[in-house]
Amino acid sequence: MTFPAELERVASTVEQRLGTLLGADQATLPASTKLGDAMRYAALGGGKRLRPFLMIQSARLLDVEETAALDAACALECVHCYSLVHDDLPAMDDDDMRRGRPTAHKAFDEATAILAGDALLTLAFEILSTPQTHEDATTRAELVLMLAKASGWQGMALGQALDLSAAHQTFSAEETVKMQALKTGALFRFACEGGAVLGRADPQGRAALAAYANAFGQAFQLADDLLDAEGNAEAVGKAVAKDAERGKATLVALLGIEGAKAHLAGLVAEAEDALAPFGDKAAMLIDAARFVAERRA
Amino acid sequence: MTFPAELERVASTVEQRLGTLLGADQATLPASTKLGDAMRYAALGGGKRLRPFLMIQSARLLDVEETAALDAACALECVHCYSLVHDDLPAMDDDDMRRGRPTAHKAFDEATAILAGDALLTLAFEILSTPQTHEDATTRAELVLMLAKASGWQGMALGQALDLSAAHQTFSAEETVKMQALKTGALFRFACEGGAVLGRADPQGRAALAAYANAFGQAFQLADDLLDAEGNAEAVGKAVAKDAERGKATLVALLGIEGAKAHLAGLVAEAEDALAPFGDKAAMLIDAARFVAERRA
Repeated sequence: MTFPAELERVASTVEQRLGTLLGADQATLPASTKLGDAMRYAALGGGKRLRPFLMIQSARLLDVEETAALDAACALECVHCYSLVHDDLPAMDDDDMRRGRPTAHKAFDEATAILAGDALLTLAFEILSTPQTHEDATTRAELVLMLAKASGWQGMALGQALDLSAAHQTFSAEETVKMQALKTGALFRFACEGGAVLGRADPQGRAALAAYANAFGQAFQLADDLLDAEGNAEAVGKAVAKDAERGKATLVALLGIEGAKAHLAGLVAEAEDALAPFGDKAAMLIDAARFVAERRA
Repeated sequence: MTFPAELERVASTVEQRLGTLLGADQATLPASTKLGDAMRYAALGGGKRLRPFLMIQSARLLDVEETAALDAACALECVHCYSLVHDDLPAMDDDDMRRGRPTAHKAFDEATAILAGDALLTLAFEILSTPQTHEDATTRAELVLMLAKASGWQGMALGQALDLSAAHQTFSAEETVKMQALKTGALFRFACEGGAVLGRADPQGRAALAAYANAFGQAFQLADDLLDAEGNAEAVGKAVAKDAERGKATLVALLGIEGAKAHLAGLVAEAEDALAPFGDKAAMLIDAARFVAERRA
């Protein structure tokens, strides 16, 4: 199967499972609440589901069936969706549009959006700790610990806090990369290392997936920054050039567009090298790294 | 030891351990960030620590050492503190004062308060899933699952969403009790049932603690509503009579002050009855129920 077809297939599987986990097929309380509606609005109906894709493919690299990684991948997506809802809030990035639709606080209201984000984050840990997600309690507890670290005060939340502070100070290239490694990189690392944990990878295998994830995350962010610098609002479905407007530090601003593109190619090569020990089995993950680097929307 | 002295002793122990878990004694990154400062501001320096107290005492009833329940109790308090930070936000209850100090979004800013709440919630799951908190992974995963359910879209977060909706509709007495059981009751139940899980209680023991927690939670809420109706701002350290002002449904409004006091006495008796099988060992928990019912501040 080609990469775009596989990405689409996994996204569809994730969408369906997330809907079930979010009570989309229940007509009764507590699913049928405004809060439930807002959670489903924020989590369903869009997105490439890249993080779940990475988790499922990383697990598959270690011979884990897709169904055995699916719920953990959905938990990860819940955290990603919560972060989008909160980042879009007026007090944060103040975005009105997301994936071509009104953001959650625009479609509902601010209080409901805050609560929906809170509840999606909480649901992620509920899913990860449910015996149905993984039969082994040690694995469940380890995934909870890893996801909490990746998304908390020393991970994604810190990255967002630092990003907000960037409006008031100048970041060096090193500081920018470090901030982005927290803000967007941490969840990519969880996706790949979480897949490694599901597949009981040996230390070398886990380290290889972590190295891949680091390169992937940086490539993803750099491609995003390039889109921001070059893109247009129609193509990416959200306001563009906002970073430059707000004086946010990005590698593109620091390296220039051509310099950033060269760096991006190097990151893709790094991602490929990391997975070399897995041989042909890693083709789909390598294609994923190429895809995020080349995407123009 | 008398109840007030024991409550104070446990609060002091919790305060110290929470400080350590929140990096209060670290001068280096990542602890020394604005986000870390806001988390410590929100979680340290106040509060009776009633929920940790209940968890520690419930565990003790089953012969669990205090040190073996302390970190789980701190995780619970992190969730409680996150809920206060988010509930106080302008888009929610819009409170400027909490425990006699400016609320987190007043002391810092809205974006930082939202992130600090998010990060406290996430930290709770990090603490619960850490091997140091409990040696048995099954217990860790079970506590994570219980806390996520208690605080999420079918628990506390739903209660807050329903409470916000109460401004636009009339609640029956039954609906009010149900909303409060979610908004404030769910964490009290986690405290007591979590203590039961730490102490590997048999089904009867766990059910007894759950019944106690239900009565305790209702008594706590009713006493709070009575304070709101009768109290003064100085005594409770936050704006009072706000509920009535906003037309929020409370049992006091539905039963009247005298009717509510009679109902409160019945709830305390219910809490006592639930723990009768434990005999004298339950004295501290029974005193706790009397305390919350009688408090006037």
